[in-house]
Amino acid sequence: MNEVINLLQARSSVRKFTDQEIAQDILEELIKCGQAAATSSFIQACTVIQVEDKNKRNQLVDLTGGQPYVASAARFLVFCADMNRHKLVCEMHNSKMESGYAEQFITATVDVALFAQNVMTAAQSLGLAGVYIGGIRNNIAEVSELLELPTLVYPVFGMCLGYPAQDPETKPRLPLSVVLKTDRYQDDNDSKTISEYDKQVREYYRSRTGGTKETSWSEQISDMLVKEARPHMKTYLKDRGFILK
Amino acid sequence: MNEVINLLQARSSVRKFTDQEIAQDILEELIKCGQAAATSSFIQACTVIQVEDKNKRNQLVDLTGGQPYVASAARFLVFCADMNRHKLVCEMHNSKMESGYAEQFITATVDVALFAQNVMTAAQSLGLAGVYIGGIRNNIAEVSELLELPTLVYPVFGMCLGYPAQDPETKPRLPLSVVLKTDRYQDDNDSKTISEYDKQVREYYRSRTGGTKETSWSEQISDMLVKEARPHMKTYLKDRGFILK
Repeated sequence: MNEVINLLQARSSVRKFTDQEIAQDILEELIKCGQAAATSSFIQACTVIQVEDKNKRNQLVDLTGGQPYVASAARFLVFCADMNRHKLVCEMHNSKMESGYAEQFITATVDVALFAQNVMTAAQSLGLAGVYIGGIRNNIAEVSELLELPTLVYPVFGMCLGYPAQDPETKPRLPLSVVLKTDRYQDDNDSKTISEYDKQVREYYRSRTGGTKETSWSEQISDMLVKEARPHMKTYLKDRGFILK
Repeated sequence: MNEVINLLQARSSVRKFTDQEIAQDILEELIKCGQAAATSSFIQACTVIQVEDKNKRNQLVDLTGGQPYVASAARFLVFCADMNRHKLVCEMHNSKMESGYAEQFITATVDVALFAQNVMTAAQSLGLAGVYIGGIRNNIAEVSELLELPTLVYPVFGMCLGYPAQDPETKPRLPLSVVLKTDRYQDDNDSKTISEYDKQVREYYRSRTGGTKETSWSEQISDMLVKEARPHMKTYLKDRGFILK
């Protein structure tokens, strides 16, 4: 339809990068794109830590579950939900901030994601590519310590950015009828549609791995969701003041 | 730097629209842009309800706190975090999904926000504009009933989209040094920087309202955060299976 739409629809996660660096002025332009995203009630709850220290980068490879591109990408950014700034601002006006409730957790988390997705899109528009690192939550307490995050700041995800050295095929998405509904939620046909989609995903993995990986979307999901992921998160969020104890 | 970056940086929330409609094939193209966003462990946890029914639209005006553009915009979309689909998929494989824990709540919510921000950017690229409606959470139980959302589906926010009939000035954002840190979190100079920024925000409101509104960022934030917003959210999320009771 237009170049922006082509850019968005052609996205895939890139984990291999050339040695080319990303200049600081470019990085700052990307961050300004993030800041320009909508922010709930103007809270501006996103803080980004750019990790330049090689030693910290290497530690983050381990802490995110052994993802080497966390060290090798030109840039590694940690996107944090930050309500510490608001606590500070309340103190400036001698008022006491209420914190630790679900609504604030949602607005801060959403703020971060809208911000980050603008950074990703802006990066892509400059020929850069990257990948989100949810693995930042694998050892979230250690990551928080490493980056000296205060209470009321939590790392939502990381992002590797660099000039791409691979061009992965885009992964097929769920059929539109499953994700877009009119006027009300109804999932009467979704099982059938997902079974059809499963074949497509199986074929995608088969062709991408030369036949060594064969799984469908529903198999992958059901295998993954039978156990709780990152069970430490609730305790961590309580410790950091994001959820009431 | 380029047109995409200009587009992202020039964004502002638009609440007045012309009568021009948005064709369904365009809307579907936008949704596909949303789907192309990264999704944590391929969970694809976003479902969008496009609300076309006039009666429901009018009810949503009231339920979101009296925002008339929820009815008047060409399109109104409700972006939902959806783990019901995954429950269904687990049932297809005779397995039982673990749900109600913090990590899953984060991944589903982030998925929705990344998806939605792509929709917003794609819309902008076609000359459309819009506004996020966090007010969908004002009366979230009633909204969920109106849209027949099952357990494990929660509306994160709404979005009005249309052809713009206004071109609001962009709202000044926090200085870069407050939101971008290197290697570690440190906020030693933030109070001072925010005080400077406060003057800029005060001037923005003064010029936009012809002097009738005069407030700074820190005043606005501290006035807002002294009380808990949407205190019903925690109970709602428990009732819907998103947080363990």
